Amino acid sequence: MPDSPLCPLCTDDPATATVWQGPLLRVVRVLDAPDFPAFYRVIWQAHVAEFSDLAAGERALCMAAVVAVEQVLRERLAPTKINLASLGNVVPHLHWHVVARFASDSHYPQPIWGVRQRPGDAQRLAPLLPALDAAVSAAVAAALRQSTP
Amino acid sequence: MPDSPLCPLCTDDPATATVWQGPLLRVVRVLDAPDFPAFYRVIWQAHVAEFSDLAAGERALCMAAVVAVEQVLRERLAPTKINLASLGNVVPHLHWHVVARFASDSHYPQPIWGVRQRPGDAQRLAPLLPALDAAVSAAVAAALRQSTP
Repeated sequence: MPDSPLCPLCTDDPATATVWQGPLLRVVRVLDAPDFPAFYRVIWQAHVAEFSDLAAGERALCMAAVVAVEQVLRERLAPTKINLASLGNVVPHLHWHVVARFASDSHYPQPIWGVRQRPGDAQRLAPLLPALDAAVSAAVAAALRQSTP
Repeated sequence: MPDSPLCPLCTDDPATATVWQGPLLRVVRVLDAPDFPAFYRVIWQAHVAEFSDLAAGERALCMAAVVAVEQVLRERLAPTKINLASLGNVVPHLHWHVVARFASDSHYPQPIWGVRQRPGDAQRLAPLLPALDAAVSAAVAAALRQSTP
């Protein structure tokens, strides 16, 4: 499906840092959600709205990337919980949120879109992010080598 | 992993109606979110917290069920968007929310956990739910027959 000229995910979003990209998907870290520093997105490159718009092999590839990100976040940060979501109500271009959540974070146990519970402590993670990005990039590359659609 | 005695998803939740179940997962319709009548959950039967706790074949089976539910919601209801999420901050037992969202619904375009935007019109869908449950059940059964872990 061709790119959609009005879709912000069909171009690079300045509020994200691209961590890995290939022909079918890219992985970015979200920069404009300071309460959630370990917040990545797996973005399908083609402009499709729904997960079920993908063929079965494409879905497997997409989830292989999501799981690779999740596993790195678990191994490096030992979060209280991983949150995964594909919503797209505002930007209907398929993307998966992969967020490391901590019992001490600003919204826990609410979803990141819910009501703030307390001040955040996100700066605690800032020194870890460069190495986290590198680990995510390597893990996604390895996962996609093993998963061909 | 054994059932956890304190986990509400290790037993049947009275706020849900079971639509389909098998040894590895079950699909329920959520009854206590009246603003979102076409709201299903795919619940992994074993008490695991994270999607990446599943083996690759189990993940494929789980997502086959999620996609089967999504496809039925799209075909029967033509929603504005499907929302998928695996959060588990409150109940860390792996479950996927699969929700049909409509531009007219109470929270759109906010996530269902976000801020209400308007009164809902959920009663509009009530007459469709028995047939929807039956279609979801049939689609999940068919999808899992085709996907063996």
